[in-house]
Amino acid sequence: MAVLKVHGSPMSTATQRVIAVIIEKGLEYEFILVNMREGEHKREPFISLNPFGQVPAFEDGDLKLFESRAITQYIAHDYASSGTPLISLEKMPTLVNWMEVEAHHFDPVSSALVWNIIFKPMFGMTTDAAAVEENETKLAKVLDVYEKRLSESKYLGGDEFSLADLHHLPNLQCLMGTPMKKIFENRPCVSAWSQDILSRPSWAKVLDLQKHH
Amino acid sequence: MAVLKVHGSPMSTATQRVIAVIIEKGLEYEFILVNMREGEHKREPFISLNPFGQVPAFEDGDLKLFESRAITQYIAHDYASSGTPLISLEKMPTLVNWMEVEAHHFDPVSSALVWNIIFKPMFGMTTDAAAVEENETKLAKVLDVYEKRLSESKYLGGDEFSLADLHHLPNLQCLMGTPMKKIFENRPCVSAWSQDILSRPSWAKVLDLQKHH
Repeated sequence: MAVLKVHGSPMSTATQRVIAVIIEKGLEYEFILVNMREGEHKREPFISLNPFGQVPAFEDGDLKLFESRAITQYIAHDYASSGTPLISLEKMPTLVNWMEVEAHHFDPVSSALVWNIIFKPMFGMTTDAAAVEENETKLAKVLDVYEKRLSESKYLGGDEFSLADLHHLPNLQCLMGTPMKKIFENRPCVSAWSQDILSRPSWAKVLDLQKHH
Repeated sequence: MAVLKVHGSPMSTATQRVIAVIIEKGLEYEFILVNMREGEHKREPFISLNPFGQVPAFEDGDLKLFESRAITQYIAHDYASSGTPLISLEKMPTLVNWMEVEAHHFDPVSSALVWNIIFKPMFGMTTDAAAVEENETKLAKVLDVYEKRLSESKYLGGDEFSLADLHHLPNLQCLMGTPMKKIFENRPCVSAWSQDILSRPSWAKVLDLQKHH
């Protein structure tokens, strides 16, 4: 069996999502740093791995994938018997439903907030205050739905931690270091859930990678 | 076996996505019209089916789902032996990768264009010209990637029509009635692909529904 290869950057939220799954699964992997400051993600050989010129890219032998949530689903299915299950074949329709909620409700608003509050100032760009306000309002509405869901089951997909929760970790981690933290803390079930998933040992290991690159 | 139930509106792109799959699969279904002008999607009993107050919602016996791409995946897996395959278990990782491309690259820009060019004027709101320009540029870049991909395989997921293509149909149909049409037509492989998938008999049946509601 070939060792899994992840091409990316430890600062990239999509890269973090993939590595979190690999660590939960206890799999070996090779990390190939893509130097984004040098623009390596916008030229060959990288753009043959990800035609959108964004990190990450992934290889498992001859299989090449580049969308982070496609990589996590592949690993969860293909390495089902290793480490944390992360999916459940019987409960798949409901898990996929909540994975889609993350992708289409949580990700757009949380990514807009992370971009405006954290990354724009880091790159010397100006935060768009109107975009922050608009997405803060949207985030509160999304988390109202999560609060109700998490009052009925411990995790979004059901009683077990799954990809539906894990996919939130990178943006969730970023937002907890911003004033948006209060929107999570004001909701008891959301607050307990976010503390729970952020304290997983796998996630601490993902954050550790930032110190070594 | 219970008849599948789809709650939604024939004008809703997400509802259209679900019905297209049901028709490709040759399955019977009951359509329950949600009167959005009356705000039925924002109150009970509908919000117990979709807590985000958006159409569609779906029931198959006791199973209830509401995210359109979760519903399509459920039907494609659970009714694998009916009608058009739409997925391939051996090629699932690549299919999922291109389904994620639709969700995270095509959908955000095409939805912003459809909203600004078609729905805002319909609701008496003002089109945001800067948003149109920004998303038109982004759409061209996405379709550059599609052009290369579709020069290598007939469909996005490989040689067979699959969910990775089908998920594009509702926004693709809308955009072909706007000046954005040229961005598709300027790219030979994208143009052939869009004509191919838009001319599927199942899609004509989805569009027919708009005449009857």
